[in-house]
Amino acid sequence: MTKLLMKGNEVIGEAAIQAGCYHFFGYPITPQSELVAYMAKRLPEEGGTFLQAESEVAAINMVYGAASAGVRAMTSSSSPGFSLKQEGISYLAGAELPAVIVNVARGGPGLGNIQPAQSDYFQATRGGGHGDYYTPVLAPFTLQETIELTAEAFRLADVYRTPVILLTDGLLGQMMEPVVFQQSSTPVQTESHNDWALQGTGGIRAPRSVTSLELNASGLEKRNLKLQEKYQLINQSEQQADVYFAEDADWFVTAYGSVARTALSAVKHARSEGVNVGLIRPVSLWPFPTETYRSLCEKTDQILVVEMSAGQMIDDVKLSVNSSVEVVFFGRMGGSVPDPEEIFDVIIENAKGAAKK
Amino acid sequence: MTKLLMKGNEVIGEAAIQAGCYHFFGYPITPQSELVAYMAKRLPEEGGTFLQAESEVAAINMVYGAASAGVRAMTSSSSPGFSLKQEGISYLAGAELPAVIVNVARGGPGLGNIQPAQSDYFQATRGGGHGDYYTPVLAPFTLQETIELTAEAFRLADVYRTPVILLTDGLLGQMMEPVVFQQSSTPVQTESHNDWALQGTGGIRAPRSVTSLELNASGLEKRNLKLQEKYQLINQSEQQADVYFAEDADWFVTAYGSVARTALSAVKHARSEGVNVGLIRPVSLWPFPTETYRSLCEKTDQILVVEMSAGQMIDDVKLSVNSSVEVVFFGRMGGSVPDPEEIFDVIIENAKGAAKK
Amino acid sequence: MTKLLMKGNEVIGEAAIQAGCYHFFGYPITPQSELVAYMAKRLPEEGGTFLQAESEVAAINMVYGAASAGVRAMTSSSSPGFSLKQEGISYLAGAELPAVIVNVARGGPGLGNIQPAQSDYFQATRGGGHGDYYTPVLAPFTLQETIELTAEAFRLADVYRTPVILLTDGLLGQMMEPVVFQQSSTPVQTESHNDWALQGTGGIRAPRSVTSLELNASGLEKRNLKLQEKYQLINQSEQQADVYFAEDADWFVTAYGSVARTALSAVKHARSEGVNVGLIRPVSLWPFPTETYRSLCEKTDQILVVEMSAGQMIDDVKLSVNSSVEVVFFGRMGGSVPDPEEIFDVIIENAKGAAKK
Amino acid sequence: MTKLLMKGNEVIGEAAIQAGCYHFFGYPITPQSELVAYMAKRLPEEGGTFLQAESEVAAINMVYGAASAGVRAMTSSSSPGFSLKQEGISYLAGAELPAVIVNVARGGPGLGNIQPAQSDYFQATRGGGHGDYYTPVLAPFTLQETIELTAEAFRLADVYRTPVILLTDGLLGQMMEPVVFQQSSTPVQTESHNDWALQGTGGIRAPRSVTSLELNASGLEKRNLKLQEKYQLINQSEQQADVYFAEDADWFVTAYGSVARTALSAVKHARSEGVNVGLIRPVSLWPFPTETYRSLCEKTDQILVVEMSAGQMIDDVKLSVNSSVEVVFFGRMGGSVPDPEEIFDVIIENAKGAAKK
Repeated sequence: MTKLLMKGNEVIGEAAIQAGCYHFFGYPITPQSELVAYMAKRLPEEGGTFLQAESEVAAINMVYGAASAGVRAMTSSSSPGFSLKQEGISYLAGAELPAVIVNVARGGPGLGNIQPAQSDYFQATRGGGHGDYYTPVLAPFTLQETIELTAEAFRLADVYRTPVILLTDGLLGQMMEPVVFQQSSTPVQTESHNDWALQGTGGIRAPRSVTSLELNASGLEKRNLKLQEKYQLINQSEQQADVYFAEDADWFVTAYGSVARTALSAVKHARSEGVNVGLIRPVSLWPFPTETYRSLCEKTDQILVVEMSAGQMIDDVKLSVNSSVEVVFFGRMGGSVPDPEEIFDVIIENAKGAAKK
Repeated sequence: MTKLLMKGNEVIGEAAIQAGCYHFFGYPITPQSELVAYMAKRLPEEGGTFLQAESEVAAINMVYGAASAGVRAMTSSSSPGFSLKQEGISYLAGAELPAVIVNVARGGPGLGNIQPAQSDYFQATRGGGHGDYYTPVLAPFTLQETIELTAEAFRLADVYRTPVILLTDGLLGQMMEPVVFQQSSTPVQTESHNDWALQGTGGIRAPRSVTSLELNASGLEKRNLKLQEKYQLINQSEQQADVYFAEDADWFVTAYGSVARTALSAVKHARSEGVNVGLIRPVSLWPFPTETYRSLCEKTDQILVVEMSAGQMIDDVKLSVNSSVEVVFFGRMGGSVPDPEEIFDVIIENAKGAAKK
Repeated sequence: MTKLLMKGNEVIGEAAIQAGCYHFFGYPITPQSELVAYMAKRLPEEGGTFLQAESEVAAINMVYGAASAGVRAMTSSSSPGFSLKQEGISYLAGAELPAVIVNVARGGPGLGNIQPAQSDYFQATRGGGHGDYYTPVLAPFTLQETIELTAEAFRLADVYRTPVILLTDGLLGQMMEPVVFQQSSTPVQTESHNDWALQGTGGIRAPRSVTSLELNASGLEKRNLKLQEKYQLINQSEQQADVYFAEDADWFVTAYGSVARTALSAVKHARSEGVNVGLIRPVSLWPFPTETYRSLCEKTDQILVVEMSAGQMIDDVKLSVNSSVEVVFFGRMGGSVPDPEEIFDVIIENAKGAAKK
Repeated sequence: MTKLLMKGNEVIGEAAIQAGCYHFFGYPITPQSELVAYMAKRLPEEGGTFLQAESEVAAINMVYGAASAGVRAMTSSSSPGFSLKQEGISYLAGAELPAVIVNVARGGPGLGNIQPAQSDYFQATRGGGHGDYYTPVLAPFTLQETIELTAEAFRLADVYRTPVILLTDGLLGQMMEPVVFQQSSTPVQTESHNDWALQGTGGIRAPRSVTSLELNASGLEKRNLKLQEKYQLINQSEQQADVYFAEDADWFVTAYGSVARTALSAVKHARSEGVNVGLIRPVSLWPFPTETYRSLCEKTDQILVVEMSAGQMIDDVKLSVNSSVEVVFFGRMGGSVPDPEEIFDVIIENAKGAAKK
């Protein structure tokens, strides 16, 4: 196993290729542009298709087209560009097309800045587009995990025929870390989409259509009920979370993505000072790992949510735990990244509060 | 007071003009196209500006430009077109620009159909765009209330310097109802935006800029903290709800917008059959009228949420009431509109359940 | 009569307004941007419509729309942007719509530079777009004449229902000169387009259509024959040229637009040195003033064509004069503007040649 | 040699591939869409790049990009779409980039119809774009010649570093005819563009630029003088014409492209009736085969120009022959295709006139 020192954005690109994704459509925006550049260089080497679209709106619609043909397709952007893709993501969901969309999030709202942020949580987990749909959202916290979750994103997309969001941020996109690609000698087996994909009739079968249009209200309701069943199945089967120090924790800190790294350091530091605190790190943001929170927080009376945003995951935490559990929040915004000491201080302060109760 | 029989989409247009909005930028999409057509005809008569943009993305950015000059500006669309505006809405929020954006919602996800739906609730209330922002969301349930809430939308936009969403649907947009415009003899007094709007320096003051860009992380965090204070202030001051039969209700049905009309009929019918049920109708969806729910549901153990969607407002209801209150859901999707009998049946069924408890 | 000191680009704008043109659609490009800026400022003052389009292609199509409604409409650009309008100009010609399109020409081909040039002569006079059409082309050589020819352009457009090109260049566009506007106290009388323009049926007449589509070959041939008759009529009626020193000239220099100013100085200088040379200045480039050339050159055996291009008007001169007349050429290119001495030298050199013959 | 029965549009595509063109960027428009479709199918098989652009403007700019990298690139359209490419063609000319642009011409001006026409002659031969440039224009009259001239177009493009136009029409594009591809066993040798193309520095040479921008007037004039030298060289070296019955013809008919087929039939018919008429068929429209006309018409006093347009090639014929030669014209327009009898009648009528002189 060779260790490679790579930039996070490039890791996503290579992981996608190794997951069998040879169709990428993108548009540059800092801090994700290295991913576009990586695909521009690598995909022609693999006989794949890289296309720089004329806009973010075009890119997501090109993904729609490629996905309709049954191939693994990806696009990526950063927050403002990701907002432009919301109509397209809703179309992918409505047409039940597998695809992976990467958001290397930055500070907002608006043009904001190019520093890392987690403020696109609601947009990712509630469907920033229109209509009753959800998309699985995976949030890695190391570059090695980025490799795994990129592959996992394609697996979920294929198995459930759904767009999947890989939600990372400017910190993970720009940092370098040694990674190992578990290159298998055999090509990746992707789901066979032979039963619906538009690959030509070959003159031997009836034409198919892939569409999100359904003018008849009862027809659309039927389709939507089927979608909701799928979402329920995903919710039951695909919740993912990592838990640290659960065995003896009196209460928990919770954080995802890059800030979970910092939070983990802070938790370890606090434990070395005798605070019996644990960490819950949701890996899938949708489906939110409700069960993990519910069971772990049954006997605790406090949870500290740490975000690089104004407090968005709070809602999901509150909806997961009993209302007797006090939900405390610490957040930084606008591209400001908390350091371990800051979070440590907040833990210590709340540890006293927890003790008092 | 003359009563006029008008179509819902036209009512919004006339109400906007009477609220002092003379700048409209739109793009046609069923079932909101009559609003665009109405403005195309009326605004030139008033010396205003109507512009059919080349796309929904262009329209919202034209609103950004007009709003920067301190004038009341509006755009409108229906669900897919509304998704295309998410980047622009985030920019308006980031630059703290007043504007009103109308969503005459239709069935989704994707292209869906042109029947009425409420499935854009998350998108509207959580910010379908990127970054930490909220927009006030107002949801009328009659055409007369549409007039009032259109004016209220502009008031909120101006007072708080924020984009505001008027969330209606194809049912309210296409129906006709007699309405009365309370035409004042004096022109509407809009907020003076003299202290920030880009209206030319006249050679006597320093140039200004209106932007959502703030490259410095601490600068952006400061701006975002100011935004969050504003959102907290709105949350405290601007919750709106209508409550029916609160005085003797043992439990509540809750619904908003067009389906609240049907729910109210069903509630009245149920009461005539001896069921002591009331109705909570949120008028502002963000800020969600949490206090109304909290206080009214203190002594009840059940609430029935009725939506023309898969169950989105449920989250807000759960976050508002004590976890001992059982939240029951009834929804139709994909443009299917429930009739009073259906809802009545669900009320009756749950009334028995409520009784048992 | 007040003399105003104005920039050439602004003169065109004001002249258009005084000619009753209240609809302008543009896109900025050096060296014509002051015209767009002038219209942006002036048209709202006049209750007119200024619209900055999203591209040059959009601007010419907006002109198509406005012209269909029977109002005087204008767009402008400089060479590369003018090329983008070729499809639209062909559509205007095909649909027989009156409109004025300004080209403040710059150095080319390609991006070239922003210096003045006359190298768009073929494009203007032969129809850079597709199909059998011509457009009248007027080329002023002073700012005062710019006022007159702008009005004349609108007159031709209306009388013949045709797009008309005002061909000027970066020199005339950027220079300042005192001008007088002969403001009439009564508004300009434009042609009544009541018999074809799309101004609403008012419920009392049948709908009309304005289109360049004619799928039937014999129908399109018929339409084209009608167009050709119109072109023949324009050719017979609207040739315009200015002639200097015709009474005693043994031979002629010919030049149009800004370089004709310089050529005129050079001719005067040569005459003061005893050279009996005259100047033919075509004012209309299409129709080319063939008759003027033919009659004046009957007894001469030489003509010197001076252009700020590689020699394009040469073809029209050759097609106008007897083949016994020798056509000599002097040109500068790429934004290089000849000075009077240069042209004087060429005249002297050729005067000797003329003498020898 | 296998004979293949193919459609004209497809023949162009296959001929381009066999000429070593593996990069095609297009946009569909009748009557050339089969060419786009053919490339979409064939190029991936050859490891080439087919890209359907978002517009005609985009397609020509993609050609600009590909050509900058030194590869053989092509785009195609029909009249209205070809007009949209005029800016891009001017850029290719200015940057001296080799490329082939196909116009399968249809009836115009404007939207016109989808029948064959030759009315884009001026646009093709005079540069419909801005600036002092010409492009070689080749006009085949059979599908077999289409193969040869497609290869020739790429040769000219490469040798002279210039865009080249293949001008055909809806008749030749839609007809089927047996053709033979002279497939060589070795790959086509294209010009080596190693000295200017943008193929990466490989870290061993200085970066290059390919541009049509030259802000300095004397710099641009120098570049333009170099261009004019090139055009003169092409004019001297690359005139192509086919002549029929020159040995004993008293006078000539002249026609190009599809209508030359019909004219040839009519000429043969006339000869069988004792009329000593010949046919001059220009193969290159620019450079126009002036020398052929000049020498052949030295002793004749009449030439009949036949076009499927209003009379555009007339100018070039007049500029080529002595003014004592009478130029007679017969044309059809708007998609109307003359039949041999019509042309025969015109020949007979003019033969009498010719006899009288």
